[in-house]
Amino acid sequence: MKLITSFDEMRDAVKEHRRAGDSIGLVPTMGFFHAGHVSLMESADHENDMVVVSIFVNPTQFGPGEDFEDYPRNLDRDMEMAEQAGADYIFHPAVEDMYPRPYLTYISVEDITEGLCGAKRRGHFTGVATVVAKLFNIIPADRAYFGLKDAQQVRVIEKMVEDLNFNIEIAKCPTIRESDGLALSSRNMYLNGEERSAAAILYRSLQAAGEMISRGERDASAIIAGINKLLDSEELIEPEYVEVVDYRLLHPLEELRGEVLIALAARVGKARLIDNLLINLAQSPD
Amino acid sequence: MKLITSFDEMRDAVKEHRRAGDSIGLVPTMGFFHAGHVSLMESADHENDMVVVSIFVNPTQFGPGEDFEDYPRNLDRDMEMAEQAGADYIFHPAVEDMYPRPYLTYISVEDITEGLCGAKRRGHFTGVATVVAKLFNIIPADRAYFGLKDAQQVRVIEKMVEDLNFNIEIAKCPTIRESDGLALSSRNMYLNGEERSAAAILYRSLQAAGEMISRGERDASAIIAGINKLLDSEELIEPEYVEVVDYRLLHPLEELRGEVLIALAARVGKARLIDNLLINLAQSPD
Repeated sequence: MKLITSFDEMRDAVKEHRRAGDSIGLVPTMGFFHAGHVSLMESADHENDMVVVSIFVNPTQFGPGEDFEDYPRNLDRDMEMAEQAGADYIFHPAVEDMYPRPYLTYISVEDITEGLCGAKRRGHFTGVATVVAKLFNIIPADRAYFGLKDAQQVRVIEKMVEDLNFNIEIAKCPTIRESDGLALSSRNMYLNGEERSAAAILYRSLQAAGEMISRGERDASAIIAGINKLLDSEELIEPEYVEVVDYRLLHPLEELRGEVLIALAARVGKARLIDNLLINLAQSPD
Repeated sequence: MKLITSFDEMRDAVKEHRRAGDSIGLVPTMGFFHAGHVSLMESADHENDMVVVSIFVNPTQFGPGEDFEDYPRNLDRDMEMAEQAGADYIFHPAVEDMYPRPYLTYISVEDITEGLCGAKRRGHFTGVATVVAKLFNIIPADRAYFGLKDAQQVRVIEKMVEDLNFNIEIAKCPTIRESDGLALSSRNMYLNGEERSAAAILYRSLQAAGEMISRGERDASAIIAGINKLLDSEELIEPEYVEVVDYRLLHPLEELRGEVLIALAARVGKARLIDNLLINLAQSPD
């Protein structure tokens, strides 16, 4: 496995593999790997001849007062894990190379960035879309891998790819969880012991929602009330939103039908955690 | 020469030429060709193995009340001219294929789109940047050709390419003019005989500015005053702006130095016409 920081070197490596007829998988990350990242890399390794893992803590997707400075970083450990998971290259550009001054160009995806995390994190998805487009242009891969824990992010990237005609397939990978159900996140490290235990309620509440749906519940407000009741039972959890939306446009649903995303965000101690359930329901017969 | 309207067919043609080792030149246009377009195509033909000319009157770069509906179109004549000029493919997509509903993704280039034409044509350069990025993704060329008559547009595209790391060279081609100096533009067809004669003052005023500079004038306000005086001498000309800016950031200059753009826009009858002079001045010794 090779560590590359230079754009030209990265382009040359891709070009060489292209010439050899290799398919190319890209796993864009902010580093500080956990088993969720590893599963993305393993999927990429399985489906492509060459795998590039990018590690870049992207300043433009953090808002003022968010944790850009504190975001955990550990390149040495990340490199070991990536190599084990089958990565061929780590692309680790410098902030000043990604955003040379004056930096002026941004990509906005409208509408689907307004709700859920976009409502509180203004500009977050513009930062995400912009950096991902840059990575796609530096590393023109066949497939790019993203985790469904960040479902809105995946949808924003899918929509950008569709709208801007990027010639890349977006592979959506399932959320990887701790044994008590907590979704893996680099931000879980902000939790102390008590907060860590309490955080399990996030997924338990989504599971309970899944059970309500299995029993036939289709009323979004009932689902949301069920989740909120469980979240409220944990003092250390401060919910930010609980929403039931259609996956394609991320618009709130009254009645569950089609591809449904049940998404939540909550503050737990210093951490802001998110989780979701993506369910494909047959269209109601009526 | 082949006419292509389908994205997949266009991608396949590019891929085939890539496989054969051909270099690819792209000339993005809105059609209704004149000698300015022809010169872009000839440059592209000279410098590349394969030339794609796109013809797409892009709705997102027209503001409300602008001339999207009236913009002149003549595909048959365009195809003849393009073939003569060395084009191998015309890419002519449908509006509903370029902007399928819901269309949500836009590229903004900040700051350099605020002045000059951007001040009056809000959203215009977002439409331009967005459609050009789409074309670059559908037709990943080695070089793309743009005319310097639209100097701000060229600068916006150069900046987008730099910021988003598109792997494409932007070739800037000189403005082609009528014998009396009027810059060729598809919009010149909106002019009646009297307006057409009067419009020659646009370039004459820029030439006069060039002469002032040759004689040593470096004060932007004197240059602007000189141009305005000439424009005011023609009753049929209604100036929109006359500005002296640095080419890189398009910020107004007080004293001329470096790469200087002298740009103007004016209404002449139903037409809104633009023209400019790009001058490279040695840095002042002081």
